[in-house]
Amino acid sequence: MKDYIQHDPWKIIEQGFHKEDNRISESIFSIGNGKMGQRGNFEEHYSGDSMPGNYVAGVYYPDKTRVGWWKNGYPEYFAKVLNAASWIGLDVHVNGERLDLHTAEILDFRRELDMREGWLKRTFKARLLNGNIVEVEALRFLSIADDECGALRYSVKAVNFSGDIEVKSFLNGDVVNEDSNYDEQFWVEIAKSVEGNAGVIVSETKKTAYQVAIGMKFEIFKNDELQDLDYANEALKMYVSGSSKLDVVEGDQIVVYKYACNVSSRYYAADQLLEKAEEAVNRAHSIGFDNMLEDQAKAWADKWQHSDIVVEGDDAAQQGIRFNIFHLNQTYTGEDARLNIGPKGFTGEKYGGVTYWDTEAYCVPFYLCTAPQEVTRKLLIYRHNQLGRAIENAEKLGFDKGAALYPMVTMNGEECHNEWEITFEEIHRNGAIAYAIFNYIRHTDDKEYLAEYGLEVLMGISRFWAQRVNWSEGLEKYVMLGVTGPNEFDNNVDNNWYTSYIAMWCLKYTEESLAYVKENHPKRYEEIVQNASFDASAEVAKWREIREKMYLGYDEKRNIFIQADGFFNKEQILVKDLDPKHLPLVHHWSWDRILRSNFIKQADVLQGLYMFEEEFDLETLKSNYDFYEPRTVHESSLSPCVHSIIAAKLGDEDRAYEFYLRTSRLDLDDYNSDTKDGLHITSMAGTWMSVVEGFGGKRVVDGQLTLSPMLPKQWKSYSFKVSFKGNTILVKVTDSGVEVTHEEGQGLQIKLYDEEINIKANTSIVVHR
Amino acid sequence: MKDYIQHDPWKIIEQGFHKEDNRISESIFSIGNGKMGQRGNFEEHYSGDSMPGNYVAGVYYPDKTRVGWWKNGYPEYFAKVLNAASWIGLDVHVNGERLDLHTAEILDFRRELDMREGWLKRTFKARLLNGNIVEVEALRFLSIADDECGALRYSVKAVNFSGDIEVKSFLNGDVVNEDSNYDEQFWVEIAKSVEGNAGVIVSETKKTAYQVAIGMKFEIFKNDELQDLDYANEALKMYVSGSSKLDVVEGDQIVVYKYACNVSSRYYAADQLLEKAEEAVNRAHSIGFDNMLEDQAKAWADKWQHSDIVVEGDDAAQQGIRFNIFHLNQTYTGEDARLNIGPKGFTGEKYGGVTYWDTEAYCVPFYLCTAPQEVTRKLLIYRHNQLGRAIENAEKLGFDKGAALYPMVTMNGEECHNEWEITFEEIHRNGAIAYAIFNYIRHTDDKEYLAEYGLEVLMGISRFWAQRVNWSEGLEKYVMLGVTGPNEFDNNVDNNWYTSYIAMWCLKYTEESLAYVKENHPKRYEEIVQNASFDASAEVAKWREIREKMYLGYDEKRNIFIQADGFFNKEQILVKDLDPKHLPLVHHWSWDRILRSNFIKQADVLQGLYMFEEEFDLETLKSNYDFYEPRTVHESSLSPCVHSIIAAKLGDEDRAYEFYLRTSRLDLDDYNSDTKDGLHITSMAGTWMSVVEGFGGKRVVDGQLTLSPMLPKQWKSYSFKVSFKGNTILVKVTDSGVEVTHEEGQGLQIKLYDEEINIKANTSIVVHR
Repeated sequence: MKDYIQHDPWKIIEQGFHKEDNRISESIFSIGNGKMGQRGNFEEHYSGDSMPGNYVAGVYYPDKTRVGWWKNGYPEYFAKVLNAASWIGLDVHVNGERLDLHTAEILDFRRELDMREGWLKRTFKARLLNGNIVEVEALRFLSIADDECGALRYSVKAVNFSGDIEVKSFLNGDVVNEDSNYDEQFWVEIAKSVEGNAGVIVSETKKTAYQVAIGMKFEIFKNDELQDLDYANEALKMYVSGSSKLDVVEGDQIVVYKYACNVSSRYYAADQLLEKAEEAVNRAHSIGFDNMLEDQAKAWADKWQHSDIVVEGDDAAQQGIRFNIFHLNQTYTGEDARLNIGPKGFTGEKYGGVTYWDTEAYCVPFYLCTAPQEVTRKLLIYRHNQLGRAIENAEKLGFDKGAALYPMVTMNGEECHNEWEITFEEIHRNGAIAYAIFNYIRHTDDKEYLAEYGLEVLMGISRFWAQRVNWSEGLEKYVMLGVTGPNEFDNNVDNNWYTSYIAMWCLKYTEESLAYVKENHPKRYEEIVQNASFDASAEVAKWREIREKMYLGYDEKRNIFIQADGFFNKEQILVKDLDPKHLPLVHHWSWDRILRSNFIKQADVLQGLYMFEEEFDLETLKSNYDFYEPRTVHESSLSPCVHSIIAAKLGDEDRAYEFYLRTSRLDLDDYNSDTKDGLHITSMAGTWMSVVEGFGGKRVVDGQLTLSPMLPKQWKSYSFKVSFKGNTILVKVTDSGVEVTHEEGQGLQIKLYDEEINIKANTSIVVHR
Repeated sequence: MKDYIQHDPWKIIEQGFHKEDNRISESIFSIGNGKMGQRGNFEEHYSGDSMPGNYVAGVYYPDKTRVGWWKNGYPEYFAKVLNAASWIGLDVHVNGERLDLHTAEILDFRRELDMREGWLKRTFKARLLNGNIVEVEALRFLSIADDECGALRYSVKAVNFSGDIEVKSFLNGDVVNEDSNYDEQFWVEIAKSVEGNAGVIVSETKKTAYQVAIGMKFEIFKNDELQDLDYANEALKMYVSGSSKLDVVEGDQIVVYKYACNVSSRYYAADQLLEKAEEAVNRAHSIGFDNMLEDQAKAWADKWQHSDIVVEGDDAAQQGIRFNIFHLNQTYTGEDARLNIGPKGFTGEKYGGVTYWDTEAYCVPFYLCTAPQEVTRKLLIYRHNQLGRAIENAEKLGFDKGAALYPMVTMNGEECHNEWEITFEEIHRNGAIAYAIFNYIRHTDDKEYLAEYGLEVLMGISRFWAQRVNWSEGLEKYVMLGVTGPNEFDNNVDNNWYTSYIAMWCLKYTEESLAYVKENHPKRYEEIVQNASFDASAEVAKWREIREKMYLGYDEKRNIFIQADGFFNKEQILVKDLDPKHLPLVHHWSWDRILRSNFIKQADVLQGLYMFEEEFDLETLKSNYDFYEPRTVHESSLSPCVHSIIAAKLGDEDRAYEFYLRTSRLDLDDYNSDTKDGLHITSMAGTWMSVVEGFGGKRVVDGQLTLSPMLPKQWKSYSFKVSFKGNTILVKVTDSGVEVTHEEGQGLQIKLYDEEINIKANTSIVVHR
């Protein structure tokens, strides 16, 4: 736990350089634009501890799997996003001494991320070993208005000296991944050019042969005057630079404007890349730094217009929630259905930048309510694109006839994980993928999506479930053996309630979807059925039989669903009775002790009750919450949000707020001591859910948007936006009541605290409490 | 499956060089003497496929663990036996061309392992690329009479040429392990010397700093005359050689006698090793090759005297069973309690030469009946020596107060394995270690062993069980959660019957052992209790409570013990109904499919019924056998022997023989296509068990040796030896009856087919059937 980040409603501020926490800051001050991202590394040389990170969305490498004990079905290679070439580099020499904050005396330092406008600024004053003092301001951004480009402005002032300042601006593609399994370098150089103040490097990933061109063009001003300089150029292995030395007298200020781009063979023919990179850099240069910065602020204003949450009366909470929304919007923009959201986004190497069920279970609810529906649609199409591979994946495990098992972790549709108890057994991910389709349609009414893409995915998933269950003669029921539920502290269990329930639900929803497409798109229906060799009557009949005879553990005495077979053989201990020195369990207990305990890593039965709340009465919700919550240690960042939402639903406002706090500043305050590896991007969506679905009580019931907000007593007010079926509303919750303002669309009938309310376009309604 | 090894009662013969199977042959033709061992590599250079292997017992290296997903409790390093320096090397040049069977034309080739006398011979005739034909005979052995030494005789005859033959004799310590995890070299050179026809290399293992000296001395004869030669010497990195060129005319025969030794810092001070190596080599040289070979034959005759099994009427069976006995006796001699038996012995790198529960469950029964009781005693003391580490190991997993969990796999007492479902959960190994103590005492009457060593081990193990169970409120029983039984095709199950049963048995046997030591060795008892801070009355009372209230799954309808909770939720399919193309499952099925199936890798419930046969009636044995056997795929080489013994007990002679066949020639015929990696040393003991306990019906009942032999109809007769409480008897089974001959000791009362028989010293009794 750290607390060096200053509280501010719109900015993230590090005042004074926290050298020992530099990797944490590099993660926190990451910037991105959906296509590329980079950690908050310094522009100038830094010889202290740092983890360089530059990532190009969708450019991955199949790294060789390293595993102790091989099991059939493990991937031999797994895709991961690569650390890529960096364009921010500037080498600054002051009277011959290289500027390096690790060796210089730092007189003043401030790092600042402006979330409203989307830029990163760093200012510092430092005394070099030679006694020269410089004042520096560095400001940079990755443009979301022109997502191939970025720019930086770097000014150096000669505070107490005259002499010379040499500036070398470079591109560096000679980089490695820290997590490379066999210490391989993943890039090879294809081409490079450098002349004067401009340069390009084209490099290619090994094996996948993606080419990426990175380009730069820079200009140097002295005291606001553009300098006409000769540049000495260097071209080394995957490295180009241009440098020039300027004479300065005390008080002079040197300013470098550097324009850069990143273009890849995912969007252009490889042989055009050099040219395209030059084009992009020239485009940025001709627009100019100030105009680009203005465009950036405008584009971000538009994002905030749809996604902002305003909290009055609590700057820490305000900063926390905005930080989460900001990073989600930096990570995924919905431009390209080949992209998705890695748990660390563009902020670190951990988890390889790949897709988990986090996307469907946590991120989709966020984007559905805060972004154009196209954004979520792209996330769904991503899975449709990978349906073939999901079928292959299931075949590898012994399934057939079009059964699809989506991988636990993936970049391109292939499995990237190799722990059998997760890879092969944590199959509930299939359910979340189906649920996201349902969730998308109930928020957008875009039922045509089923005909176009959704139904095929649902059929593959349902076919999987139908093969994955087996008939138990003992129980005279269908059972689901050998699974790992969302609670990864219980492996290879039978009849995990969540998994079995969502499987049943998938079978039912697929049946309904088949009926819808058959009736409304009969030609497309025929096509789908034929492509999939689908025996509609037999397969659907089998699904119905399974649904009707599925075994679900239920404890009558306690009125709770049993997480999995054998749960009540475990010694029942509550987290509050555990000596806190044992927490987190994952650091202090052996795996077998964890498995034998009743402690729950993250919401499992409660995850299901959250998703299918409509199907259960409040009493059942409460008895399950009362039973499972005290046994849950929340050692996944995805756990507290679900608990927060259910606690709010049950009227337990204190607990709802407590759970909300556990994720809202997770990274800013480095709660889990792992922010240095990158940010918890996908759990950030959970924080948003805590506010909007928890405090705000936002639900979709029978196709209608419903709200039942509460106000945490720590706050004066809060407001959030919800996009729903073509409308956007602003909901403001204060002490005295709720104000709903219609901002976009044709008007909307919603339910507020069980009351039907018709909000006409561009009107407000205030409901007092 | 291969069948190129010729059948012969005493010899293993490869006629004609099977180049593509060379690694298999290298495994099969391995030789060893308990202290060192080597694969059947060629003496002269061979550029074809080969896996060099030389192993020094107990000289291990802590290799860095490579694992995909780390769990608390995994070892960071794990010990393994190293590939060590080789002494057999001879480089032979014939008129300037290097002799190499990979490039020469092979006119004749034969490899022969004489099991009766313990030597390996190779003869061949080959035409070199230069047209010169040589006839070679190479004979070598590792002495069991002087276990620091080995010797070889290598003769080369100039068949069709005159000119010169150059012989270079060398020691090579510059070797690596094929399975090195990070491609490390494990040895560094300490010293070397070479002069004329003698040399020594001393090298040291990294980290563990074991020093090993290997020495040689050689002589060259031409046409039976010792040659007085000048030797050119070389000393390279961990390599020394001496070479000389001899003129030959057609028909001349050059014979090299090479004496070698291996001495290590496990037995001598490191600074004496060079000297000790020279001593050993000079000793061997002064005894001379022929005398050493004679001593070897005598020493082996003594081993066979106690362990031979003679089968009449079936050469393949005879060869198979002798091959197994031969390798067991090569691998472990009981000289040193710091040594044990790796699943591959000295025949390959796989499994790292380390100790599994195989030792106690399979090897102990063999050595108990075929070797002096000291041999088994040493195997037990090995575990006593490691008790402290077993307690540390349990502490790492969260246990305390002296609870001991022996590692699944070990060299020096530390865990060497890292699959959580095995490392942390396959805890039944503790039971086998306790059972071996019981088994040793019932065969030897050496109850004093309990006071000296055994009780402390039993207490640590029982303390572990007492902490490992927990009270289930649901079942109102003690349960054993999260275990993997002997059937490794079922992971992380609750209430595995075998594990729970053996745990109960341990608690009872420890209680009895405590009482025995207390009564008979009160002072030692006090010492043990004090050392272990043992609260006798409280702890034993707890053990009793656990034993009385332990949950054991039982199916009344079928009268069978349930392998583990949930077994009957699985779809019940028999192996015979499985398409054979799926077998072996471990190669064809994903791990999750295997886990969800009812197929059993190796005897589990039946393993328990085998060990505790006295405690169950025949009907129960039969119903369990009838139920579980058809579900067992025997994908462990340790499975068929138990089934063979039970089948014989149940009178199912055909099946008993069928199971016996599955292991008896496992390696000779390369059944599992893995002989190339080394031999299945520990499962060889299972073959012996099939014959003696299966066909021979040998048991110990109420402290008495009992026999009830049957004769497989494929055999004319068979005989085996059993050592029991200071006596050795020979049991010969023929068509007409059983002849029991007393060979050593004071005489013995046994039970033969339920009849009490008193065999006086040096008499025979024949019982007709």
